[in-house]
Amino acid sequence: MNIIEHYRRSNANSHRNLPLEQARIVDSHWGDVTAEPGGVDYLEVDAGGVRALWAVPHGAPDDGVLLCVHGGGFIGGSMYTHRKMFAHLAKRAGVRALIVDYRLTPEFRHPAALEDCVTAYEWLRAQGVTRIAITGDSAGGLLTLTTTLRVDPKPVAIMPFSAWTDMEFRGESLKANVSTDVLFGGDRPMNLRALVGMYVGPDGDPADPEASPINADLSGLPPAYITVSDAEMLLDDSVRLHEKAVSQGVDATLDVVPGQQHTFQMAAGHDEVADDSLARMAAWVRPFLV
Amino acid sequence: MNIIEHYRRSNANSHRNLPLEQARIVDSHWGDVTAEPGGVDYLEVDAGGVRALWAVPHGAPDDGVLLCVHGGGFIGGSMYTHRKMFAHLAKRAGVRALIVDYRLTPEFRHPAALEDCVTAYEWLRAQGVTRIAITGDSAGGLLTLTTTLRVDPKPVAIMPFSAWTDMEFRGESLKANVSTDVLFGGDRPMNLRALVGMYVGPDGDPADPEASPINADLSGLPPAYITVSDAEMLLDDSVRLHEKAVSQGVDATLDVVPGQQHTFQMAAGHDEVADDSLARMAAWVRPFLV
Repeated sequence: MNIIEHYRRSNANSHRNLPLEQARIVDSHWGDVTAEPGGVDYLEVDAGGVRALWAVPHGAPDDGVLLCVHGGGFIGGSMYTHRKMFAHLAKRAGVRALIVDYRLTPEFRHPAALEDCVTAYEWLRAQGVTRIAITGDSAGGLLTLTTTLRVDPKPVAIMPFSAWTDMEFRGESLKANVSTDVLFGGDRPMNLRALVGMYVGPDGDPADPEASPINADLSGLPPAYITVSDAEMLLDDSVRLHEKAVSQGVDATLDVVPGQQHTFQMAAGHDEVADDSLARMAAWVRPFLV
Repeated sequence: MNIIEHYRRSNANSHRNLPLEQARIVDSHWGDVTAEPGGVDYLEVDAGGVRALWAVPHGAPDDGVLLCVHGGGFIGGSMYTHRKMFAHLAKRAGVRALIVDYRLTPEFRHPAALEDCVTAYEWLRAQGVTRIAITGDSAGGLLTLTTTLRVDPKPVAIMPFSAWTDMEFRGESLKANVSTDVLFGGDRPMNLRALVGMYVGPDGDPADPEASPINADLSGLPPAYITVSDAEMLLDDSVRLHEKAVSQGVDATLDVVPGQQHTFQMAAGHDEVADDSLARMAAWVRPFLV
């Protein structure tokens, strides 16, 4: 199983109306595409009422923590699917990671996931952690932004990657990259609007800046390292985020990787492009944390 | 990916003469068939010079440890492939597990693997652990027996499952179950003799009781719970072990599960038969440990 195979299967399953429990089992195999980083301990904790997983690279200091928010369209993914990928990142950065297992749709809708991320962030601060960077992929990239916008004090840095930032779907790349995006596009694109409906609910507003952070005032954001591939349907969600952030005075860097799939970093340990991307993120964030 | 799919692929790959590195990547996906048990912490340790992984179910006491030896024909498997399966067992038993990452063939031959298991056992005792049970599947079942025969004092109990006990291949089931055993049998059975050659080396003796524990004096074994399926080619490796152990005065129990694959317990968390088997093992061993 590699990332392309997994995404083809996920795309196909999105059209099959599987019972939630079965869909979650398929989804639980996302992390099978990631190699074990090794030299990392994993400890489950209750982070102020939110389930979370510590990934502790051997020798990492106590202060300076990466708060990690997994993707999965708000309906899937977990601290287990993304354990190895975030551990690769944490190991390269030489810091601990706390992977948040926030509440998912359809059982829980917005702002449950956001609240869980905020709770985990505040729990970290209550533990005496003074330097926190937030990172997340896809829906976790969205939560990275909305969590950062809500908390005070802010994290020292953020790294959204393959981030979803616009629940109103205004990016050109959503159409332009249909043929290259295996997970969301292909012959039969995934129904992303259904995910929005589940997230904000029937009476919710996708334009709400806490649902679509591209609509938010970004001027308070800390330094941001934004990674995406030019083959992704969500490319413009990152490009527009970067443009707006820079225009509002944020110290934001955009790293566009050619020809890769959504959250291609999940192939860490098996794929040099994934490893190199995580290495750049780690090198960028480390000075903020240690 | 389920266990049948993984075994079909492993069988096919065994005929393809893959470079070792590639074969090990395929093999590293063995654990993808196991669900996450949850509520278990994992810590990598140096166990007296041998790499090992603690699986610590929340609330487990310090004393009373399952020493776990993974299978993989002495050439594959790792503390990572078997992490979740042994963690399911440990969680059900309510005790800690130490999963040994012993040295593999072809880089290291007998007695390297055995010595690593003995070292890990002695390291556990040096840590003050007084009650140790040893368990392992397949090649790890063989090492469970040979480690137990070598150490003094003995473990308080052992649980070999789907164990390989005879490197001279005298079991009738090796032929009788070719059609039902997906991993070793099928249309094109795996070359098990090649594994023996790699393990004992060109001048080694498969009849050596430390290579074929069925040839050993078993009278000193502690209570043993032996699990196997009647559809396995290695069925008789367990049946004959049980017969000889009982005839030599060992308190040995044989649990034959109908119609399952080799080390079917790897499907834990997804398959009731696997879960039930681990539950019986856990219920049997717990009184020895806590």
